[in-house]
Parts: sequence; C-alpha cells; structure tokens
Amino acid sequence: MPRWDPKAQDRLRAAALELFVEQGYENTTVTQITERAGLTRRTFSRYFTDKRDVLFAGSEQLPDAVAAAVRRADAALPPFQALLAALVDIGESFTDLVPHAAQRRAVIASSPELQERERTKLAAVTEALAGALRERGATASRAKLLAQVGIAVFQTAFERWTDQPEHADFTTCVHETATELASSLSPAAGLVTMPENP
Amino acid sequence: MPRWDPKAQDRLRAAALELFVEQGYENTTVTQITERAGLTRRTFSRYFTDKRDVLFAGSEQLPDAVAAAVRRADAALPPFQALLAALVDIGESFTDLVPHAAQRRAVIASSPELQERERTKLAAVTEALAGALRERGATASRAKLLAQVGIAVFQTAFERWTDQPEHADFTTCVHETATELASSLSPAAGLVTMPENP
Repeated sequence: MPRWDPKAQDRLRAAALELFVEQGYENTTVTQITERAGLTRRTFSRYFTDKRDVLFAGSEQLPDAVAAAVRRADAALPPFQALLAALVDIGESFTDLVPHAAQRRAVIASSPELQERERTKLAAVTEALAGALRERGATASRAKLLAQVGIAVFQTAFERWTDQPEHADFTTCVHETATELASSLSPAAGLVTMPENP
Repeated sequence: MPRWDPKAQDRLRAAALELFVEQGYENTTVTQITERAGLTRRTFSRYFTDKRDVLFAGSEQLPDAVAAAVRRADAALPPFQALLAALVDIGESFTDLVPHAAQRRAVIASSPELQERERTKLAAVTEALAGALRERGATASRAKLLAQVGIAVFQTAFERWTDQPEHADFTTCVHETATELASSLSPAAGLVTMPENP
C-alpha cells in the first residue's frame, strides 16, 4: 500500500457512513471503520482524529473560508447577493462530499450529540458571515439576519443538490432556493395583510 | 409575605439577571438570587428549577405553542404569512420579558453552555414550525426553509423591539424586518447577477 493514497480518505469516509447507517453511530468503532475500508488505524489517523471527525473534518476552517469568500465577492454586489456568491463559491468545494451527504444527514439526525455539534458549527459560520457583511457596510442587526437567512438558503440548496445531483448544479440550486424564498416573502404574497405602520 | 406573590417571579428574574451581568452566570448561586430579591429559596423553587431555568422557563412549551399559533392563522394566508402571524401572536405573550431581554441576551452570549441551550431551544421551535407548515401544504424542504427564515425574522424583530420598546410595537418590528428582508432578497436587488438556469 502506498504511503499516500488519495482515495484512502474517501474510502474511510464511505466505510464510516455505511457503518453508522447500518448499526448506529454510537455502536461503531474506528477499528470497524478501518476493517471495512481495508486500511490501517494508522491511515485513519492521518485523515481523522476520531469517528466524529469523519462527519466534521474541515469544519474548523469553514468560518474563515466563508468570510474570505464574502470578501472576494464583487464589491458592487449588495450584501445578500455577495453572500449568495460566497456560498456558491464555498459549496462548489464540497463536491467530494456529495455522494455521502444524504447518509451524513441521516446519521446526524439520529444523534442529539451530533445535532448539537452541527448547530455549533453552523453558528460559527453564521457569526463569521455576519462579520464579513458588517465589513461590507451592513448594520449588526441586518448582517446577522442576512447571515442566518443565507445559511438557511445554503442548507436547503445543498440538500436539494445532494438529493438529486444529476438534476442541477449547486449554483442553480442556490438560485432556485433564493428565488423561491423571495417569492414567499414578497409583499404581493400577503405581507399586505399585516397591519400598516402607525 | 403572602403565599402567592404575583410579582415574586419577576423579582427573582430581575435579581438573577442583575447578578449574572454583575458577577457572571457561573459565579452566581440561587442563594444569592433569593437574597437579592428578598425572597426565600422555597419561593424560588415555586417558579424555577435552577438558575439556568430563570433564562429558559417556559421554553419546553414553546414548540407546541408556536405550532398551535400557525394552525390558528387564517387558512387563506400563504405559508410564510401564516408563520409571521403566528410569530406576532406568540411574541406578544412575551411582553413581561421585554425589560430583561437585553440582559438575557448578554448573559447567554457570555456562556458557550447557555448558547448551546438556546440553539437547542430554537431548533425545537424551528422543527415544530416546519411541521405546522407541512400541515398547511408546504413540502418538507420548503417548510424547513421558511421555518428557519421565520425564526431569523422573529429573533431580529424581538431584538429590535426589546432594544427600543418605545419606538414601535412588536407587530410593527416583525413587519419592518420581513419587509427589509424581502427587499434584500428581491431579484431587482441583484439576484439577476447570478447565472441563469441552463
């Protein structure tokens, strides 16, 4: 076996997710994962610190990466459109996660501990996004609102993309989700039924 | 001291929040809270299970209350507008929390444990909202998206309201926040710069 196997990380991830779905996250050990993948524990340690890390590898870098993508977005774009451009940019780097995304969601949904970890991750990304939007001139309150809504659009678009990757690319999924949301929110769709300002 | 003191709960809440802000949440004991409020530990136990409960009392009922409010909303309203009507309905029952809301936010922001508890609470409310929107005919994916966005609008509107309660009532804050978001999202504001569907 070569010392550097570019497919090893993906084989380990696939084996781990298979086992998590088959027998439960709690009941799965790193030894079982490496046996299923036909790799050693030493190889596992090269890519992941523990079994939870299979689900969250790279998430520490995500807040900075997302903020940097907002900073790279065309200076002429208004805040929410800069944010969407950044999310498309980031989402496209997740292509190798597409085949595992639905399984990963099912595993996380099965465990309160993993749900909590996922929420903590998303909160850190939301905070970084809000910070980057403040740098582009949004007020703190508006930056937080748009960051939260951007994360909701990202999650929805990512789920739709990974559930049917042959249907459309990620950019199209983000575009469709944002358009659908805009039409749900539009005053014509019913906000006029709310009381007017005094 | 009368056995039933309608102001006791509020005095305990005010004393607890003062102490949390002054000396930190971790460093504050229930005994200090009851001493500051001039009440007994027995009275404290009538309203709260522990000091954390001062910040989260009633939150177990929130998911069901929010879902019920969505069900009560006019059947003619589209999903997002039914959701806004429900959030206004619920928010108005929080009037007694207004004087403490900014302090509560500061205390929660100071503690990762409390932030996690707050996120868990909001996730349960989001799930209940999504369920109620599915009952009104929204697909699972759309219901989840609208519920997440609704919670973001609620949080923003509640913060704006409680920061300046004399400025506007809660309904107006929700209306203004939703309108601001709709205009940030609108295609005219820049979605047209995204690639068109193939």
